[in-house]
Amino acid sequence: VGPGDDCAVVDVPGRRLLLTTDALVEGVHFRLTWMTPEQIGRKAYLVNASDIAAMGGQPRYVLVSVTAPGRYAGRDLMRLNRAISAAARATGARVVGGNLTRGRTLSVTLTLIGDSPAHPVLRAGARAGDVLFVTGVLGQAARGLRQLRRDAGARGVAVERFRRPPCRLPAGALLARERIASAMIDVSDGLLQDLGHICTASGVGARIELASLPRAGDPMLALTGGEDYELLYAVPPHRLARLHALRGRLGCPMTRIGEIVPRAQGVRAIDARGRPVPVARAGFDHFAQRGPA
Amino acid sequence: VGPGDDCAVVDVPGRRLLLTTDALVEGVHFRLTWMTPEQIGRKAYLVNASDIAAMGGQPRYVLVSVTAPGRYAGRDLMRLNRAISAAARATGARVVGGNLTRGRTLSVTLTLIGDSPAHPVLRAGARAGDVLFVTGVLGQAARGLRQLRRDAGARGVAVERFRRPPCRLPAGALLARERIASAMIDVSDGLLQDLGHICTASGVGARIELASLPRAGDPMLALTGGEDYELLYAVPPHRLARLHALRGRLGCPMTRIGEIVPRAQGVRAIDARGRPVPVARAGFDHFAQRGPA
Repeated sequence: VGPGDDCAVVDVPGRRLLLTTDALVEGVHFRLTWMTPEQIGRKAYLVNASDIAAMGGQPRYVLVSVTAPGRYAGRDLMRLNRAISAAARATGARVVGGNLTRGRTLSVTLTLIGDSPAHPVLRAGARAGDVLFVTGVLGQAARGLRQLRRDAGARGVAVERFRRPPCRLPAGALLARERIASAMIDVSDGLLQDLGHICTASGVGARIELASLPRAGDPMLALTGGEDYELLYAVPPHRLARLHALRGRLGCPMTRIGEIVPRAQGVRAIDARGRPVPVARAGFDHFAQRGPA
Repeated sequence: VGPGDDCAVVDVPGRRLLLTTDALVEGVHFRLTWMTPEQIGRKAYLVNASDIAAMGGQPRYVLVSVTAPGRYAGRDLMRLNRAISAAARATGARVVGGNLTRGRTLSVTLTLIGDSPAHPVLRAGARAGDVLFVTGVLGQAARGLRQLRRDAGARGVAVERFRRPPCRLPAGALLARERIASAMIDVSDGLLQDLGHICTASGVGARIELASLPRAGDPMLALTGGEDYELLYAVPPHRLARLHALRGRLGCPMTRIGEIVPRAQGVRAIDARGRPVPVARAGFDHFAQRGPA
């Protein structure tokens, strides 16, 4: 599997590895007034670990590449690096290398190398009739981001959720090991957009029931807000019993939110009466717009 | 081997891997008026491959993380990515993943995963009495950088050398496989600074003969100018005959430039009459100063 899934999968004799890289950039993903160095470091790790989780893998090695402005204190850099190491250790991985460059804005790029399960869960395995589930709660990080943009001193669970993404590694690993999920992705750019990736890769459509979304606010944010880092996965009907038997071991809540349909029906959200819900914009694309920060 | 050598070395059952990451940042390492997207992409790959070469390894997989401003055209991004892929393919590696983020300046961070030789050449193996060699020519890239800073339209071999680092993978692999080098590093921050890394890691000193440096200009640039991406390596006396027998297979010139001495003698350069050469600054440190661009 090359570019285009959550991670690249490479086979080396006797081992299958997952590779993924992602960056947190000041002014794009965060402002320095919003997060401590510890929070930036931890989040930089967790957003990468989320890609490993979405394949059902286990992070092992971390490479850290930091660009920092001269005004960013050495002590803050140390706090940032320590937080990355601590977050890695907490999930069974370790930092094995990195580099530091001077630049105009703080940018933290991590590369994770992980162990793949025997059958990594790709985006491409969903079939019409599969049931769609999502872990945790959607839209909260986007709400926290909205609050921080209005007031850098904002507080509350939404802000905390923006600062600290969930870690769904145990859930992802279980869903892969038990071969429950036919397709899986982490929700980083908004539910509809990431669901779109599964549908494109699998050649299917999907129907989301708006009323069923696990959310703590604006249903539109649950559909299109980014940075949830929850797992979205499809489960074939004959694996549903196994899923329900194991759900207590996922380590997090899960919610049935819709189903996979034939491609001709497209990807859409419907309200409680079955009417299509108009969606203003299809997910958060860091590149297509100015970015949140 | 963890952080602190050219690459991290990780053992997976049946295979030893090298991991390295490095970034090229606009305004720090280059200006957009100095290099085409193809040149930026190729250089981003070659500076990372240089770290693999310095361990004697072979690059296999590449992850690409690009931050680009909105004004950077999609066509230029495609040219950049194609150049990275082409440079990787030319050395037996392939791009397996990546991501794109919007940001204020262009920044290209690559992670390379490579195969390690059975005995990767570390920085820590040099012993007093070992002879020091360097591949290629020193100081030319720094001279090209100087010319570009004065005139973005500058031309000539020095400028070309700044834009296109050498690829010393065959030389590094041979020196490792034949167990000729006791310690090795790539010269990225200037000869004296990188020699200092070998000496610190090995607990030794070194003496460089200024007159012997393979250079094409200011001897100070050969000592302290950065971005050469040549290999600096130490060879024990009993391996010198083997080195000379194989030198035709290195794929590049090599020059004897000094020797490893006991730690108490420090790291210094001497002129043709054996007098110590005062050095203004010990190498190019991207972080300690404003940066070249």
